[in-house]
Amino acid sequence: MVSLTSWYKMYPPQFEELIKELARLPGLGPRSGERIALFLLENGEAEKLAQAILKVKESIRHCPSCGNITDKELCRICSDPKRDSKILCVVEEPCQLEAIEKTGEFRGRYFVLRGKITPWEGKETRSFPLKKLMEKLKKEKIEEVILAVNEEFTALYLGKFLKPLPVKVTRLGRGLPVGARIEYADQATLLQALKNRSEV
Amino acid sequence: MVSLTSWYKMYPPQFEELIKELARLPGLGPRSGERIALFLLENGEAEKLAQAILKVKESIRHCPSCGNITDKELCRICSDPKRDSKILCVVEEPCQLEAIEKTGEFRGRYFVLRGKITPWEGKETRSFPLKKLMEKLKKEKIEEVILAVNEEFTALYLGKFLKPLPVKVTRLGRGLPVGARIEYADQATLLQALKNRSEV
Repeated sequence: MVSLTSWYKMYPPQFEELIKELARLPGLGPRSGERIALFLLENGEAEKLAQAILKVKESIRHCPSCGNITDKELCRICSDPKRDSKILCVVEEPCQLEAIEKTGEFRGRYFVLRGKITPWEGKETRSFPLKKLMEKLKKEKIEEVILAVNEEFTALYLGKFLKPLPVKVTRLGRGLPVGARIEYADQATLLQALKNRSEV
Repeated sequence: MVSLTSWYKMYPPQFEELIKELARLPGLGPRSGERIALFLLENGEAEKLAQAILKVKESIRHCPSCGNITDKELCRICSDPKRDSKILCVVEEPCQLEAIEKTGEFRGRYFVLRGKITPWEGKETRSFPLKKLMEKLKKEKIEEVILAVNEEFTALYLGKFLKPLPVKVTRLGRGLPVGARIEYADQATLLQALKNRSEV
């Protein structure tokens, strides 16, 4: 077998460096890194990507109130007085927030954890903004927390953490995706769909 | 269905711009662009990627003799006097050149087309360096051209183009990949393997 690094062994060093940086990105590896590096080399607008990265790093920050990304003092949701500040939706990443926003249904506010809880990697757990969540719950007199997280462990951990507090904790409903075929659903989903059945 | 662009509609504009630039890269789209943009935002070393892009664009050029990428006047193969200048291997991209180099078997030189021939996209055909290839064949008195290209049409086109010239034109052998199981090989490959059978 060919080792991963030997894939870009004979290119000029600057080009190797670019492949290496690209290969570190989520979902990419040495081969896709090589392909993208060649594309960037041939592409007249590659500098635009470099500038876009630098601009984001320079001007995008995390909302101090909820952790969402923003280029303003507060994010567009925290600075919107029409949003219901009594309901807080906890998500792991800004992309989950955007997905929920697109439904147009939720009018509360968010709290972005910026990561999942992984107790076997001490670092993440320590830097986890649970203290901040606690402060926010108290200060803003929040009545309901919706846990909209992908990771089961994060949901369990947060559930336990929030249980002693005088706040209602809910999770997103589980069941069949809209349009899904019953015969292809996995057992766990079908079980949840049965449990969460509703009257017609 | 949700349109592609609406995936990054509500992020700050600088962040949208970064997603857009990432989504244009080969193999990526709006979703993977979003994921990588969030990764870059959280990642302390994102500037290294931006700098790597700028450095490559600034210092990497194409070898004027063969089209391979290099940071020198001539690429490492064209400037190596020990390479056999009578055999020329024609490839589409530098990554194919690197793959052939890794076999350690080929001691000739290369010609990198930097693209495939697509007659239905006039642009590529016009900018195709066939004139340059022709000049090189004449000037360097090349005796054999090996066509090592992925695209069948490029091989056919080049074959026709080179036929009138006093040069031997060959293609890479076709057959079963090493280690492949006969029962899983596709018919076309198996047919080639039969045709190209060799005595043991």
